[in-house]
Amino acid sequence: MTVSTPDKSVASIRWLKAPTSWSWVEQANARPMEVLIDHAHCERKAAGSAVQMMFRYLCEPGLGEALSPLAREELEHFEQVLALIKARGRYLEPLPSPGYGAELAKHIRKAEPHRMLDSFLVAGLIEARSHERMALLAEHSPDPELRELYGGLLLSEARHFGVYWTLAEYRWPRETMTTRLSELADAERSILQGQLTNPEDVRMHSVGLQV
Amino acid sequence: MTVSTPDKSVASIRWLKAPTSWSWVEQANARPMEVLIDHAHCERKAAGSAVQMMFRYLCEPGLGEALSPLAREELEHFEQVLALIKARGRYLEPLPSPGYGAELAKHIRKAEPHRMLDSFLVAGLIEARSHERMALLAEHSPDPELRELYGGLLLSEARHFGVYWTLAEYRWPRETMTTRLSELADAERSILQGQLTNPEDVRMHSVGLQV
Repeated sequence: MTVSTPDKSVASIRWLKAPTSWSWVEQANARPMEVLIDHAHCERKAAGSAVQMMFRYLCEPGLGEALSPLAREELEHFEQVLALIKARGRYLEPLPSPGYGAELAKHIRKAEPHRMLDSFLVAGLIEARSHERMALLAEHSPDPELRELYGGLLLSEARHFGVYWTLAEYRWPRETMTTRLSELADAERSILQGQLTNPEDVRMHSVGLQV
Repeated sequence: MTVSTPDKSVASIRWLKAPTSWSWVEQANARPMEVLIDHAHCERKAAGSAVQMMFRYLCEPGLGEALSPLAREELEHFEQVLALIKARGRYLEPLPSPGYGAELAKHIRKAEPHRMLDSFLVAGLIEARSHERMALLAEHSPDPELRELYGGLLLSEARHFGVYWTLAEYRWPRETMTTRLSELADAERSILQGQLTNPEDVRMHSVGLQV
């Protein structure tokens, strides 16, 4: 079966260089609790990363106003996913990360203002990939409760891509942004085409793209 | 004039070792914008500190459920205070901190589980002091809009003290908690009885206690 990008997809997905494979969807559907627990961790990390940018770029105009509501929304999702995990008798267990975020972060240039641009674009790419995968689960999970959960969450992820995009757009020319986003999206594709340390692991951002 | 603890005070304040002086209230009323900008930074830092604890004690039962909504509320207050600052034609300007939080953090013991207990208690004490001072401004600010702002925010601060207290209560015997809280409250009093580097500065947590 070929996975087509669901109709409810939005512009954010067009920045991704390759779509997720059907085998990732099958793995995720086979181990839903693992994906849920990893997802809770992802929401927590996304909130942490937004708050960290608020600290790093303390007095940057318009940044707090944009990132504070975004962080609140990530925390709300964290609570929502955690509630479902607990309702199913599990907890926020420690789970080895697939290294996706850490690998992507290596591509953030160290000197400003590049660091700020790259931070916005990397955060946006992660939101875009999350959105793409949640849309797949919202459509293809055999579990109605999970379809509903992911369906409810995915629109925010797309909106969050827009928040980071707008923050960048306010500061850089469009061409600088698209060129750099394309390079980072290449890196993102390479990471998700890599090798899993443990092929049994399935995560929101574990490897699995269409070739 | 003697400042009495306002009627709307709650249990949290009884842990503070000395009440705020009237001269602090006068300074704060004389420089309301400085206090507002500092306050926005405080809400941001409180959210950051809650998120940081969620990261440090990742899978600690009940912690994410308690601290995530608390962090969201701090961020909401940050946005609310920032909106007022902007409505008055200013922005989230950088403002030298009075060093209160950093000084208090020095009293957090480095080894676990002490570190966790001290982190909860220090966070709780900061909320308690914020609550006490906001209650003073809610009552004594000459500006009706600020009285309303602080009046609306202060109940959350008291509730946040309770969140940290409950997190500690779940893990430590009452006597361990009260003994340690008393020591930390002594330190808090000493800090706020200290010397300001610049006596012109007034902050939510700048010095000024009744002797």
